[in-house]
This record gives sequence, C-alpha cells and structure tokens, in this order.
Amino acid sequence: MDESSAASNARVSSLDVVDVRFPTSAQLDGSDAMNPDPDYSAAYVIIGTDDPAQPRGFGMTFTIGRGTEVVVAAVESMRPLVLGVSVEELRTGMGAFWRHLTGDSHLRWLGPEKGVMHLATAAIVNSAWDLVAKVEGKPLWQLLADMPPDAIVEAIDFRYIDDAITPAEIVATLERNGATRADREAELRVTGYPAYTTSIGWLGYDDTKIARLCDEALADGFTRFKMKVGADFDDDLRRARIIRDHIGPDRMLAIDANQRWGVAEAIDWVNGMAEVNPYWIEEPTSPDDILGHAAIARGVAPVLVATGEHVHNRVMFKQLLAADAIGVCQIDATRVGGVNENLAIIFMAAKAGIPVCPHAGGVGLCELVQHLSIFDYISVSASLDGRMIEYVDHLHEHFVDPVSMRDGAYQVPTLPGYSSEMYAASLERFAFPNGPEWAPDPGIDAESEDIVADDVQPVPR
Amino acid sequence: MDESSAASNARVSSLDVVDVRFPTSAQLDGSDAMNPDPDYSAAYVIIGTDDPAQPRGFGMTFTIGRGTEVVVAAVESMRPLVLGVSVEELRTGMGAFWRHLTGDSHLRWLGPEKGVMHLATAAIVNSAWDLVAKVEGKPLWQLLADMPPDAIVEAIDFRYIDDAITPAEIVATLERNGATRADREAELRVTGYPAYTTSIGWLGYDDTKIARLCDEALADGFTRFKMKVGADFDDDLRRARIIRDHIGPDRMLAIDANQRWGVAEAIDWVNGMAEVNPYWIEEPTSPDDILGHAAIARGVAPVLVATGEHVHNRVMFKQLLAADAIGVCQIDATRVGGVNENLAIIFMAAKAGIPVCPHAGGVGLCELVQHLSIFDYISVSASLDGRMIEYVDHLHEHFVDPVSMRDGAYQVPTLPGYSSEMYAASLERFAFPNGPEWAPDPGIDAESEDIVADDVQPVPR
Repeated sequence: MDESSAASNARVSSLDVVDVRFPTSAQLDGSDAMNPDPDYSAAYVIIGTDDPAQPRGFGMTFTIGRGTEVVVAAVESMRPLVLGVSVEELRTGMGAFWRHLTGDSHLRWLGPEKGVMHLATAAIVNSAWDLVAKVEGKPLWQLLADMPPDAIVEAIDFRYIDDAITPAEIVATLERNGATRADREAELRVTGYPAYTTSIGWLGYDDTKIARLCDEALADGFTRFKMKVGADFDDDLRRARIIRDHIGPDRMLAIDANQRWGVAEAIDWVNGMAEVNPYWIEEPTSPDDILGHAAIARGVAPVLVATGEHVHNRVMFKQLLAADAIGVCQIDATRVGGVNENLAIIFMAAKAGIPVCPHAGGVGLCELVQHLSIFDYISVSASLDGRMIEYVDHLHEHFVDPVSMRDGAYQVPTLPGYSSEMYAASLERFAFPNGPEWAPDPGIDAESEDIVADDVQPVPR
Repeated sequence: MDESSAASNARVSSLDVVDVRFPTSAQLDGSDAMNPDPDYSAAYVIIGTDDPAQPRGFGMTFTIGRGTEVVVAAVESMRPLVLGVSVEELRTGMGAFWRHLTGDSHLRWLGPEKGVMHLATAAIVNSAWDLVAKVEGKPLWQLLADMPPDAIVEAIDFRYIDDAITPAEIVATLERNGATRADREAELRVTGYPAYTTSIGWLGYDDTKIARLCDEALADGFTRFKMKVGADFDDDLRRARIIRDHIGPDRMLAIDANQRWGVAEAIDWVNGMAEVNPYWIEEPTSPDDILGHAAIARGVAPVLVATGEHVHNRVMFKQLLAADAIGVCQIDATRVGGVNENLAIIFMAAKAGIPVCPHAGGVGLCELVQHLSIFDYISVSASLDGRMIEYVDHLHEHFVDPVSMRDGAYQVPTLPGYSSEMYAASLERFAFPNGPEWAPDPGIDAESEDIVADDVQPVPR
C-alpha cells in the first residue's frame, strides 16, 4: 500500500459488535424453498483505534435471524486477537492479520475455517479492510487494484491451495492486466458492472406480484433475472412460464433451489424445466457435495451449475473448480473469511476460466461484493463475459454509501472504504432484542394486559 | 424400541449446558503440530424431564479450550427446539428429532451442518440418546443393536446421501448380520474391542518420556501405536525410530499430521518416513480437501490415508469414500451431529469396505465411541479386520462409567446409557471461568496485591 500515506502509531482499541435484525419475513421478501421466512440480519462489527484522527472500520457478516447471537459470541471470542493490532500492521500485512485470526489453535478446532467461527472472521476481516481503505482514502476496489502484486500475494493464504494456484501465477496475472487496467476502469465508470435481479422471484410472492415485478425490472433496465425453485415442480414451472412470457425468450433466466435436492432429483427437476431455458441452476444440493455438483453439472448440461453462497472456504472452491462441478462461481462477501479469502477464490476461478458472479442481496451484500467484482474485472479476469452481480432491492437505505443502480448495472462506488458502514440510527433501531423495532412496548405488556386478544398464540415450544 | 418399557408422558423440561475445561496444556498432553497447547474441554449438556422418575440425559461435544463459550451459546440458541419434546417422541423418532434440530432454517444458515452449530447439535443429540438408552435400561451399543431395522433407518437423515446408501441396503445389512449377531456380542464380551494408543507420541514429549511410555504401553498389552508428526521432519524421523525400536518391526505404527501439510508436502513427508513403515497417515491436510486426500492416497500407497475427526458431516464422508480418498474412516462422536449421523457414516463405510477406526481421546470421546464401534461390529461391518479404536489415558476419572481397558482392548460397557455422564463434582470444579480450578483465588487478588511478583506477565493482547 501507499507508503506516502500519513503514518500513524494508532492501534485498534475498540471492537463493538451489534446483533441487528430486519423483520423481512413479514413480507416474505427473501423466501425460498429452504428459507421460508428469513429476517435479514447481521453480526455487525465496528473497530476503532486509540487515535481520534483515524477512521473507524465497519464490517459484517450476513445471517437470517435466529442464531445471530451465536455469531456475536464468536466475534467476542476473537476480541483478544484484534485489540492492539496497529493500523500499520493492517496496512502492510493483511494476510498476517488473517492468519492471526484463523490460526488460533483453540478457536480453529471449532471449524476449521467454516461455520460460525468463519462468519465471525469475515465480519472482523471486512471491518479491517474498510478501515484500511478509508485510511488510504480509496474505495476498496481501488485499494485492491492499486496494491502491488506482492501485497496481493501477501494477503492470500496459500495453505491448502498451493496445488491449485501459486504466488507466481497471481503476480503474472496482475502484471499482464496492468497495462490495460485503465481502459477497463474507465469503461466501468461509464457502463457500471452488470447485474441480475432476484427481486422478481421469491417463492412467497403470488403470480400477480411476480408479473408486476417483471415489468418493473424490465422498465428499470434489467435484462437478467433469477427465480427461486425447489418446493413444488408444477408451481415452479407455472411461475417460470409467467416470467419467461414477460421477459421474452432471449433474456437470461436463472433458477435457484437453495439446496433442496439430492443429486438425482436435481437432475430430473432441472431437465424438466428445459422449456423455460434456465441459464444456471443455483445451489441444486448440499454446498458440501462437490462430487454431487459435478454429477449434476454433467446431468443438466448445457444448463450451468452455480454455487457458493454456502461454500465455506477456498479449499472447497478449489475442488469445485478442479472437479468441473461449477460453471458459475458465486463468491459471498461474508461466508468465507472476508476479502482475503475471496481474493484467493477470484484468482483460482480466473485460472480455471470460470466466471465469478457474486451472491448478493440480504443486507449489505450488494454493497460489499460490488468492490470484489470490479477488482476482478480490472485486475484479474479482465472479462465481463458471463459475469454479473446479483441485485436485490432491499435494505440499502440503511447504508451510508448504498449501491447505485442504473440500467441494470452497479455504478462504480467512489467513497473511501468497503461501503459497509450502516447508519447508527439503523443499528440502534433494529438491534436485537432491545432495539425499538424488536423490544415489546412496555406500555402494552406491563400496563394493559387486556390488549392480549384471544387469537394471540402461545409461544411455540 | 421396546414397546413394553414403562410408558411416560414426560417431556424435556430442562437443558443445562456447562463450559468445562481441563488444564491439560500444562503437561503438553495432547500436543501436536497444529494444536500445541490444548486444554481439553467440552460444551456439556444435561437434559431433564418434568417426571422425576425419568433419568436425565448427558451429552457433550469436545473442544480444546478458548471458544467453548461459543458452542455453549449455540446450544442455548437451540434450547427452544429441545424443551417440550416428549421422551416418547425421542424413543420412537430420534431421526425426526435430529431433523428438527438441523432443519431450523435460521440456524441452518450458520452452517449448514458444520462448525459450531453442528458441534452444539452433537452435544444435544448425544444427550438425547443417553436419555433414551437409560429409559430402555441398555448401554447405547445394545440399544442400537436391538433396534428394528426400520427404526435404525428412521434415525438416519438420507438427505444428500441417497446417491450413496439407501434404506433398503441398511435393512439388508442388518438382517444379514442378525443371524450371527449373538456370536459377535459374546466374542466381544470376552476379548473386548481392539484399541491403539496415542499416549506415547505427543509432540511435546521428550525422547526419554517417549521410550518410557512405549515400554509401559507394551506392558499394558498394546500392540498398536500412533505418534504425532508434521512440525519438523528430522525430529519426526528420530522419534519414529525410537518408537519403532521399542515396539519392534511388526507392531502397527500410525502417524498423525493434524492437517499440517499441503498435498505435495504430505506425499513427500510420508514417503520420506518409509523406513519406519507407517500403517496410516492421519489428517495429512485440510479435512475439507477430499480430492487432495485422494491425491495423497495415490501418492503414499501402500500407506493408508485416514481422516475424520474434523470431517464435519455425512456429505463429506460420502465423498471421501466415493473418491477413494481414505483407507481408514475415523468417525468422531461429537464432530458430526451425534449418533444419528455416525450411523449414516458407519453404514456408508461398511458398504465401501473401509474400516471405521474412531477418533478418541480428548475428554469423553473414548467413553462415547466405544459404543459406536461395538455396534459397527455386531450389526454392520461384522468384521474386526483393520478396525480399532483410539485410546488415550486422560481424564477418564471424571466419568461415572469410564472406559475399562484390558490387554489393549476396550471392555464392553454394561451400564445403561452412552457412558457420557460426568461427575457433578468434576463439572463444578472445572467449570470455566468460575469453577475453582479456573477462578483466581479471591484471597490473592483482592486482599494481597503484594503477591503479584515481578515475573508475572501482563495479559497478552
């Protein structure tokens, strides 16, 4: 990173973590075959330093409601690994910081590098990148694009992937693309990065709403669409026909099963939907089933297999790529261990010639992943072929630097940082369980028992 | 299960979870190349019912110190799924109970079926099996062996493994072995189930201690041994020669790298140790790297590849077996989702012809896994060829029904339950952070500051 930046002896001296939950289940936003009623949530991390002149870093991991408190506990368990780290150490050794977090032997036992502990790692690591990007005065994508190749190499943990990608290959890729980098950056500032919309096709929406949302998305300039499938075949086909009728025969329609099927069932279901011409089938089965995805990929071709939002680390992505199990690599900003691990995955995907199409939506994921895809185009894959970022139009209003969409494309963010800062008022209002959105009104519970009507259900066991 | 047992309307009405930690790091017991200083610990679960005549159920998951509080928080997050379940529901539908725990869509997002949430699932599920076994008045292995085939099938979640094993195959296996079951049970009651010892070869032990422990283990009747490797090749070879000299050329010596290597490094290291004739190489690399294990298996043959203590669910085991990646299947009683998921793995391994040699040691793992291996022999694999249970001679004194070893073999447990009950006094003494073993003596801290000597180190950041 840029040595001319203001030096600082600042050290991380505070780590706050908030359990923030949005009651999205009320409208069935985000409903799919595996997740009927998500409340989009986050374990939200804010790190601060002992130097008031330094910015704070904001990071998060995405969750869907119950259990977010477990991720909060995991962040707390890592607090001793974060406090006292200097801003200079972060600026010059983000890879060392990542290994410092993931290498704690006691905590590693609880993964390793998966599940709750890795979600917590993501939230912390993302906050550290936001801090450094702000210190450098650059949006994250630009911070990454400006880093010398050896600094990118330092940020990546090659443990367990050195049979798939090497530091030399990464340096060569960055150097090869360096000459034409400015062209792609200028292009993106005009066109934006292509997106597809999932907002049309949640499982809980009725047919009328689907049709209306298709028309609205077309009017907004979207040309690529995704719908949820997997609960009922006939229902899926009916809804898919409605969407195909509205978007026409040539626009992209992807389908997403959210892990509902076994291998044979996935192949049969997808092939049964051939008439609506699905572009990819997303999460057909368990995210752990690498060889199962490979079998499905062979069974549903030319439909592509896509997965990643639940693929827990670079080792799993390495194998999905090696086994020809995926045609679309769906990185997630917060499932794996933050920016560092996504760099590893982006480089492996580029080497394998598989397009990266990030998972987004939820809360904050759109804000984060846009930086990763822009870096991918500018410095790594140097291609937009088959590449697009998921877009869902929820909850952006809670972010200080929300995504900006135009003609179905993400506009390049310009403010310093990782676009991860949430308004303090939002964190306060939606804090669980004591924010005003969640805490029962004491006036009702304590003073007026009569308001409990006969149709109020007892708390389920 | 036996319909003649006393019926009960009892429901689970309490769930207690204890963070219990033993300061094993002080003696370097359990030290290996990845885990230099484990404090053997557990998130320990006790479920009780609203009927004082019913037994309580004791279960646990194994951890190694810091972060156990995160697993405790995960157990707490599942409390609403456990309270109110009836003993009768557990007796007749343990599979439904398992799916009830793992199927909560919000909590599932935090895995699925891996990491902290799955460790918590294991602790709870193990406590439920202990409760049911006590209700039935049988040790767990016998409860399993007496269950009708359709009840075993009910207990298994076939989601994501129906391409590897079917209910019909499980029924056929159980029925085929039923005729000769009594012979194997009688045999085990005489001979016990074979074990190997890891107590000789922790990485932190010096050469003199290793030599002494080899002699002691031979005197105790052990004929199979395992040592830790992976930190320093020359050191590994020197220690292996000492062990080989003491145990002779024909006894089994396995080596265990605890995930220290990448694929190429693993192959080179193991082949470099050929002169000491390793029987298996355990955890050569990331537990997630199925295809990497397959490559290592090809590269080190005839040395077998073993893994499992960090393999997080049945879907991963399915692939390790399908990819010919392991020659030894090391189930763990608490890493996957308890007894139910281990049943799935045991049947898949038997179908693949791969011996199950459980991971044990830590705290409580020996007590638990013996039941699974005994059931495997009696009802599933019907073979002892290449099969043995790990044994480590630590911390058994904290259990009400500790393992009993004779001539290097586990003696068949006879008391009802899963041998998982820890003494209340042990739970109290080693409770973290407020048990007397961990809480600072208030007499020293509060009343006598002078006792803090100059050489006391500040708390590391």
